[in-house]
Amino acid sequence: MKVKILLIGFGNVGKGFSSLLIEKKEMIRERFGIDPLIVGICTRSSGNIYDPSGIDLKRVLELKGENNFLSTPGISDRLTSVSADEIVNSGDFDVLAECTITEMGGKGSALSYIRSALTRGKSVITTNKGPIAFFYKDLQLLAETNGARLLFEGTVMAGTPLFSTSLLGLSGSSISGFEGVLNGTCNFILDLLQNGEEFEKALKQAQQRGYAEADPSMDIEGIDTALKAMILSQVLMNSPVPDIGAIEIKGISDLDPACLNRAREKNERIRLIAKGERMNGDSRISVKPTPLSPDHPLYYLPGAVNGIVLSSDVLGSICLTGAGAGSRETGFALLQDLLSLWGDNFRFSSSAFSSK
Amino acid sequence: MKVKILLIGFGNVGKGFSSLLIEKKEMIRERFGIDPLIVGICTRSSGNIYDPSGIDLKRVLELKGENNFLSTPGISDRLTSVSADEIVNSGDFDVLAECTITEMGGKGSALSYIRSALTRGKSVITTNKGPIAFFYKDLQLLAETNGARLLFEGTVMAGTPLFSTSLLGLSGSSISGFEGVLNGTCNFILDLLQNGEEFEKALKQAQQRGYAEADPSMDIEGIDTALKAMILSQVLMNSPVPDIGAIEIKGISDLDPACLNRAREKNERIRLIAKGERMNGDSRISVKPTPLSPDHPLYYLPGAVNGIVLSSDVLGSICLTGAGAGSRETGFALLQDLLSLWGDNFRFSSSAFSSK
Repeated sequence: MKVKILLIGFGNVGKGFSSLLIEKKEMIRERFGIDPLIVGICTRSSGNIYDPSGIDLKRVLELKGENNFLSTPGISDRLTSVSADEIVNSGDFDVLAECTITEMGGKGSALSYIRSALTRGKSVITTNKGPIAFFYKDLQLLAETNGARLLFEGTVMAGTPLFSTSLLGLSGSSISGFEGVLNGTCNFILDLLQNGEEFEKALKQAQQRGYAEADPSMDIEGIDTALKAMILSQVLMNSPVPDIGAIEIKGISDLDPACLNRAREKNERIRLIAKGERMNGDSRISVKPTPLSPDHPLYYLPGAVNGIVLSSDVLGSICLTGAGAGSRETGFALLQDLLSLWGDNFRFSSSAFSSK
Repeated sequence: MKVKILLIGFGNVGKGFSSLLIEKKEMIRERFGIDPLIVGICTRSSGNIYDPSGIDLKRVLELKGENNFLSTPGISDRLTSVSADEIVNSGDFDVLAECTITEMGGKGSALSYIRSALTRGKSVITTNKGPIAFFYKDLQLLAETNGARLLFEGTVMAGTPLFSTSLLGLSGSSISGFEGVLNGTCNFILDLLQNGEEFEKALKQAQQRGYAEADPSMDIEGIDTALKAMILSQVLMNSPVPDIGAIEIKGISDLDPACLNRAREKNERIRLIAKGERMNGDSRISVKPTPLSPDHPLYYLPGAVNGIVLSSDVLGSICLTGAGAGSRETGFALLQDLLSLWGDNFRFSSSAFSSK
């Protein structure tokens, strides 16, 4: 069965997702019985291409690095002057894959794309934190009302299956709290600081490695982590957060050196911890640098790895660690969300894992 | 909707499962729209009770500690001379919950119960390692052929959602290897040995805490871990294991004290590690005490906690740690499997997590 995908945003994540679609084409067909077909790509600065019969994804990826790459022969005949809004509103597709950059407040065009698609009964898969952090309940309701689904595995911990684990594997339990290291850039910088590096130099190293997100202040001031914590609070604990202003946020840019020294002396490590607790229906969330002792499950998380500890009623603490960023790693979240939409027949079948 | 459950085995796991059914009755109805009803309990030495209109589970649990508890007034009228085999073969139920004790080779009555139920098109949820370790492929095929499902979350790491995570959250990736601490008893004992305790005393402490399984040799000789590794190899890597004899197994009962000293000097910890690698369609599996350095994700696993590191093609290493044993913790696996059978409408809905 053909599944037509409209891709909005063609940065690192969109590119990672596209590469995986090509690389895993056979596996996806064999194991899930679907043929994903990209029918449109809308970019911020290179225009939009659209063709309901499918786009040559390989060619697009080959040209991606070049200026105005969508205007290159071999693709340019698919260029359209129709806006992304219009394509979402009236285009021929089954799934909207939305992976534009998070805008503060969660509003802006991403939110309107997601709303339009869901209103049309088209399922949405997204890696964009803003709309989920600020409008999760509304969007889920819109999806349900229109018989569509909204999946967002890549909004927290990239493709590491946090939401699959918690929503499918722990749905019979109640989660009352979480503690997470949710921003790889901060974790990487904190490791360097604790080894005596200066902040500016550590930040530079993080940028050179490609860890920092578009705006480094989102990372180092704890905003990115706070948005993720807002998502976790709503999705895992069913506790809405009135606004990001209700979260106590302290980033890592002005860490007191004495604090670093104290931690070092006590053999502790400082991590930027997002903490959420459910209390009487509300949730209390904080994001702040926190010293952890060596017996804490998040003490050892190398470089840009992320991790989360969930407190559940029956099982106690459950800890999941894994990739927290990266083009392929986040693109994988979109792939997995796509497969989840069509995966109901697959669940737990004996051919679950091929050797490919 | 009523869901009729036949429970085979009423030890710690069956009891934990039953308690959770009572405790979470409201949540299960509200969130999943089902009313689980135990219609029969077959025990090893106290007889069988059966009533298709449902059994008073509270009363059964109250009396559980007593001798011949199923013969006590209030329950005894449900006592039946019909054998477990016959009830499975012709009884009126929707799901078989099988939680008897693992028999080596995986054969014996548990296997025949599971086969009978699947042949009748009844789904099976089980915490019994034997049948899954030795007959996974056959049983899955039998389930598919008859339109039934076979779920077994509790066979490895109790209710910690290992199979949900890997089968649902990583189905688009390929898992090429795993490393796990899968036996809480051994982990607990190894911690004590490393603090200078003698083996016999450490074992005694583990038994006093109720960690040891029925036969301590299954734990300390690495057999329990090897069975779990066989399951993981088949389920996660699609690599069948010809027989338990194909696994290199070394337990913890005759650890060389020099080995413990060396580890201590290097600040390492010895864990009983089950390791699996897929190579050219086959898998190589070993179970042996292994020194881990402090940067290994399984280095710090307190007491009876279990953990696993999966190697995936796209995401790299993913680590999951959590409860590995316990009456409620393993009973939860049965509950979660039950909910998974009826959970398709639930997946990712906005009411996923109640605050109960």
